[in-house]
Amino acid sequence: MTNYRLTIQYLGTRYNGWQRQGNTENTIQGKIEAVLSRLLGTPIEIIGSGRTDAGAHAYGQIANFHAETDMPEETMLHYLNQYLPKDIAVTEVKKVSERFHSRFHVKSKTYQYRIWNSDISNVFEKQLVYEVTDKLDVDRMKEAALYFLGEHDFRAFCSNRRMKKSTVRVLYEIHIEVLEPEIRITITGNGFLYNMVRIIVGTLIEIGMGEKNPSDVPAMLAGKDRRNAGFTAPPGGLMLMEVEY
Amino acid sequence: MTNYRLTIQYLGTRYNGWQRQGNTENTIQGKIEAVLSRLLGTPIEIIGSGRTDAGAHAYGQIANFHAETDMPEETMLHYLNQYLPKDIAVTEVKKVSERFHSRFHVKSKTYQYRIWNSDISNVFEKQLVYEVTDKLDVDRMKEAALYFLGEHDFRAFCSNRRMKKSTVRVLYEIHIEVLEPEIRITITGNGFLYNMVRIIVGTLIEIGMGEKNPSDVPAMLAGKDRRNAGFTAPPGGLMLMEVEY
Repeated sequence: MTNYRLTIQYLGTRYNGWQRQGNTENTIQGKIEAVLSRLLGTPIEIIGSGRTDAGAHAYGQIANFHAETDMPEETMLHYLNQYLPKDIAVTEVKKVSERFHSRFHVKSKTYQYRIWNSDISNVFEKQLVYEVTDKLDVDRMKEAALYFLGEHDFRAFCSNRRMKKSTVRVLYEIHIEVLEPEIRITITGNGFLYNMVRIIVGTLIEIGMGEKNPSDVPAMLAGKDRRNAGFTAPPGGLMLMEVEY
Repeated sequence: MTNYRLTIQYLGTRYNGWQRQGNTENTIQGKIEAVLSRLLGTPIEIIGSGRTDAGAHAYGQIANFHAETDMPEETMLHYLNQYLPKDIAVTEVKKVSERFHSRFHVKSKTYQYRIWNSDISNVFEKQLVYEVTDKLDVDRMKEAALYFLGEHDFRAFCSNRRMKKSTVRVLYEIHIEVLEPEIRITITGNGFLYNMVRIIVGTLIEIGMGEKNPSDVPAMLAGKDRRNAGFTAPPGGLMLMEVEY
């Protein structure tokens, strides 16, 4: 029995997100499992580090699976990339310790959200950015971002209203970088609730537009009410960059 | 009468190239003329610096047109970007001297060709690169590139067999840059024949694969026979970067 760890890149535009759902074939997980099952001649289920939303992308998603084979890493890598659709790539296959689990052992994750802040479109990367034509005040956004750092109950920043488990998470870093006319937000945390990055980004955008104030953030967090936070920014700008173990 | 100069970006994937051809609406030129004609209430014809192939892209294509209006540059820029498809953008509108002509006054043009040399796909930019899985020997390609520099009759590197005008052109620069696993070829010259960049790149790829030798290039040029040069690399990797006046 070998435990294989995969590092995966995808352009999520055409897919219903990472996670296979019943008969829904059109997921990243489903596509990879189909190729692996054919390669190994037995049904394979892979464990992802977590879901990504429909339309969101990944630069370094991690998954693992156990299989009764000793197939070399290079052989598997080559086969996967030969048969996967062109918008999904496996960049590394590695045999890892029997005990490694892609989801349970996550220490932190890093997401990036790309805002194209211009009324001139980004014609080359339109599937990877969210276009905002109103000029955003980045200083306000940076000021607001600081309030999210550290340990908080992020219930107000979660789309799942019936979340029964803890909604407390720790954000280690929020970095807002300006690459004129792009605004790139990078967020690292120990875990993320459903739509949490997109709601934080939507809130920062509303603050950058002057519709909300940086100093409103503490009350949003404390109030734990989704209605006080900003809108859910669309998935196209979102990329799971790295999963740290 | 005002002479307007436009700087244009496009992802060429969906279009039949730059140049409007009779009733073929699906060209970059056609799309821009349609929006301008509606804006100015009179049929507008624009003059491009030159054609680009179906499926090829531009970062800085230049065009100009004369019109009986004094509309401010900003107004025109805004209107164009509002009504053009999302894969065409006008990045600058500038009122220029009455005598400026986008095609006649070109001093040089710079093209870039992006080769993705890996069996792991570039999932995020697949419309912008040409994927070559066989490992290319870049040193051989760099050696070969030197032979193209300077003034030559490029008849062997032209797809138009009935070209009656001069096929002599001057290449000022060919730069081959490795951004592992990408190989980026940048070519500047005083003018380019039909498919010339793509045939030079196809020849360099065959040399990088070992199918042809760097020292074969002088004979290809001297022989003036298209059949001695390499294949025509596909248009998706090609981008018109800049037109110099």
